[in-house]
Order: sequence, then structure tokens, then C-alpha cells
Amino acid sequence: MKRIGLLSLAVVTLAGFVAHMAHASGPSDVDSSPIYGIKIPAGYRNWQLIAVNQLLFAGKGEQLRAQLGNDIAIKAFKQGTLPFPDGAIIAAIHWTRVPSEDNNKVLDGPFPGTQSFVIGSLVNVQFMVKDSKKYAATGGWGFADFKDGKPGDEALHETCFPCHAPAKDRDYVFARYAR
Amino acid sequence: MKRIGLLSLAVVTLAGFVAHMAHASGPSDVDSSPIYGIKIPAGYRNWQLIAVNQLLFAGKGEQLRAQLGNDIAIKAFKQGTLPFPDGAIIAAIHWTRVPSEDNNKVLDGPFPGTQSFVIGSLVNVQFMVKDSKKYAATGGWGFADFKDGKPGDEALHETCFPCHAPAKDRDYVFARYAR
Repeated sequence: MKRIGLLSLAVVTLAGFVAHMAHASGPSDVDSSPIYGIKIPAGYRNWQLIAVNQLLFAGKGEQLRAQLGNDIAIKAFKQGTLPFPDGAIIAAIHWTRVPSEDNNKVLDGPFPGTQSFVIGSLVNVQFMVKDSKKYAATGGWGFADFKDGKPGDEALHETCFPCHAPAKDRDYVFARYAR
Repeated sequence: MKRIGLLSLAVVTLAGFVAHMAHASGPSDVDSSPIYGIKIPAGYRNWQLIAVNQLLFAGKGEQLRAQLGNDIAIKAFKQGTLPFPDGAIIAAIHWTRVPSEDNNKVLDGPFPGTQSFVIGSLVNVQFMVKDSKKYAATGGWGFADFKDGKPGDEALHETCFPCHAPAKDRDYVFARYAR
């Protein structure tokens, strides 16, 4: 019994040490995006709305999306400031799109044949964090993609910046503020 | 010349008087919704996001929509409080939905055939204002529908409450908070 007790203690201690090292290592932190070392920003769901959009992946599902911005990002969007100042963070929330039979029943009276689509479930959340020095190699932006609260792998995060490159004239940001 | 001058003065004075009366009459105010007397709430575009949805009107256009809430409404949504407390306001912003050729070009690489739709232009903005005493006859909610900053007519506003009646078990609110 005593030997098992000591062994358990050793395992627990080792686990704690590994967890500590993972936490201390920054970018390889299990809660941070690879390459960029970005964690989910606290309270991002309460940020202001930039815009909404919709994506129909060919044969791979349908999404409704919203982009939110922290105060620095929203101010820059409203004033048309480019490039975005350091500290700006943009959150892109992606949900599945599902038909709403309830809404369709209601709408069919005044607007026969209308189709309503609403949010199904959360797919993933992405962040762009502006730090012109830290992320100088990627247009001043760090990227992060989270699913179920966990960051995607390095291969996924290597696709972020090249994909945003076509929006270089808008500081690599696709979203436009919806007025 | 003098007679025309006096006549002009009289017309201007009368116009001012009429404008004053309209302003003083509340619900018939040119900036307020008929029946309910609701003006566009200041700063509503900065409110937090409740949810997004999409509507395809049969042969009548396509919309992307977002619902925002003031602090009282958002707190009630997050905590599941029903009925919504007095002071809660929900804003529904409706935009046209248009395809984004720019986005499609970018997405066609990693996701061939993907279709992206973004916001075109603002169509209208609607508000639900909770005041259980003032609006007791309509489930405690006052309604307002604005297009280009001007409220719709009385006939339009007579359709609001009957249309929301099917959502009675959720205090007449269709939107669900998107997590």
C-alpha cells in the first residue's frame, strides 16, 4: 500500500511538473495557438459587432458567421483607420446554419414561401491579434483558431496568413464594418 | 415684395408650429413608431450581439440579420430570465445579402466551390422595448420598425404583435442567444 502511495505521489508530481512546463513554454501552451501563442481573449463574446456573413462550403456544410471587435478594433473600423493599431483584436465566430421550421411557419402567413435559417451550434472561433512588432513576419497580425476551446494544430495555423494575404490593402482584414 | 415676405414669414411660423405640435404629441412624432411611440435608441449599434440569422424571401430578396440587445436584455438572455424585465430592448438589424466574389476567389483555393455571402446594404431596423405597464396590451412589448431612419406606418406596426404571438412561451422573442 505504502509503495503504491509513493508511486501515485510521484506520478501526480510529475504530471504537475509537465503541466507547469507546458504552461511556461508560451506558444506550445495547450491553451494557446501554435506559432502565435494566442489564448482565447476573456469576454470576447461581449465585444461589439463588426459584421455578419454566410458561407456555403461545397458539400461540406453551411455556416452563419459574426465578427466582433474589441474597443480598439471597433474604433479603427468606425474611423477607417489603416493599418489597425496595436492591441486591436478581431473575433470571428462560426456557427452551423440550420433551417428554422418554427420561423417558417410564422413567416409563411405574411410572406409565403419564405425560408428562415438560424444558428445551429458553434463550429469554431478565430482571432486576429494586432502586434506590429511581435507579428512583424505576418503583416503585424497573430492568428488563432479554436474548436471546443482547444487550438487547432500548427499545420492549420500555417494557412492563416497566406489566406488573408489577398486583403493586404485592408491590412489583411476581410470583414467590413456593417452600418 | 413686402407682402411676399410677410406671407413667407407666416408659412415658416406655421410650419414651426406644426413641427412643434407633432413633436409634443408623442406617438405621432415623426421620429417615433406609430401606436408605440418608440424612437431609435441612441447607440444601439454598439450593443452586444444576441444572434444572427438569414432570411430568403420567396422572390423578394435575401437578407442577413443580426439581433443586438441592451445590457438589460443581454443579461436576461444569458441568465434565461423570462419574462424579460422592463427596460430590456432588442434591436434587429436587417441587411441585404450579396455574394462576395472577392471572398469566393480566396476561398476557392482551400475550399473549391465555396460560396461566400456578405452584407450589401441596410434594409431596416426593428426594436422591441419591454415596458410591462405601458405596453400591457401587447405582451409588455412596444414595437418599432425604421427604414432610412423613418418609422413605418400604422398598418405596418399593427402586424408586429400578432406576428410575435407564436413565440409567447419565450415572451414573444424569436431570437435565442448564440453561445
